[in-house]
Amino acid sequence: MASDAIERLISGLNRLPGVGAKSARRIALDMLTWDTKAVRELSELMIDVKTRVKRCSVCFNLTEVEPCSVCTDARRDRTKVMVVDFIGDLLAVERTGLYRGQYHVLDGRISPLDGIGPEDLNIPPLLDRLRQGEIQEVILANGPTVEGDATAQYLSQCLTPFEVSVTQIARGLPVGSDLALADQVTLSRALEGRREY
Amino acid sequence: MASDAIERLISGLNRLPGVGAKSARRIALDMLTWDTKAVRELSELMIDVKTRVKRCSVCFNLTEVEPCSVCTDARRDRTKVMVVDFIGDLLAVERTGLYRGQYHVLDGRISPLDGIGPEDLNIPPLLDRLRQGEIQEVILANGPTVEGDATAQYLSQCLTPFEVSVTQIARGLPVGSDLALADQVTLSRALEGRREY
Repeated sequence: MASDAIERLISGLNRLPGVGAKSARRIALDMLTWDTKAVRELSELMIDVKTRVKRCSVCFNLTEVEPCSVCTDARRDRTKVMVVDFIGDLLAVERTGLYRGQYHVLDGRISPLDGIGPEDLNIPPLLDRLRQGEIQEVILANGPTVEGDATAQYLSQCLTPFEVSVTQIARGLPVGSDLALADQVTLSRALEGRREY
Repeated sequence: MASDAIERLISGLNRLPGVGAKSARRIALDMLTWDTKAVRELSELMIDVKTRVKRCSVCFNLTEVEPCSVCTDARRDRTKVMVVDFIGDLLAVERTGLYRGQYHVLDGRISPLDGIGPEDLNIPPLLDRLRQGEIQEVILANGPTVEGDATAQYLSQCLTPFEVSVTQIARGLPVGSDLALADQVTLSRALEGRREY
């Protein structure tokens, strides 16, 4: 092969999620055509993110300050907390710009097949937050999968001792989709979840 | 958004070929779960490749030594030179392990629509190599596209003054494909290129 350095870079890039052997090769060859400055820049951004970004000790959001800007934002509703499985889910909800409450990131879903039980999730810190008494609504926003449902089920049991309302975000037909092509489970959840028009 | 550092990394990753906004986000979030050591390693591989890998002055292959290992390998046939459009093409041919001659990378294809003319390709250095008299066969391995064909056409004209045989790699049905689904042009090239069985 042309060069050890390239081969090593290709295997390195291959470790990125969603980047297969062919994409890694394509990226490595493309990078060779970049200015050294641009490569150095990207390389520094990677290091930067690891040294500067931490997890918020309250809600487990990603943050450069402690606690995170969501937790300290006085304009946000401190009586609502939305529980999500992963940080990517939190970021997706933030992008809608519609939610103005707090978050709690579990860092996983209950999945016995993968050996992930409730003890692997950030549940005790959530219960600690509830014990402080400020939270009035817990919004379950676990993923719409078997594992997400199991996690929501388990959480709702943990939440019974607390005087909070527990809600779950709606399951139904995604906007722009086709009713004829919807799977049976989604369609039945959409039917169950029907509302006054 | 959670962190400036993450947003900057996402836009950085977004510059990689084949990595869209969503993949870039996914990669950045995944990288946050890596060991700092692993991120530093990948970051160094990127810098490494830029500082160590150069182009061969003879054939324009990627190389850490000058000239490249293909050009200096005494076991390789110095009478044959295969002309390819891009370095990725050379690497693909090398992976077959079947070709034991030399290469010449043009770094492009003639494409008037993209403003790429023959003067933008590494053609003069190829003609210089031919003038040295050692080369007896030029194998045209330009891409099987309109631009590749235009490039092969132009090259074959440049090569007429030299006493070399000019060949072109075969166009035909890709192995494992379906004759019924082959496009007309490929099928007609496969017919034209038929050989004694």
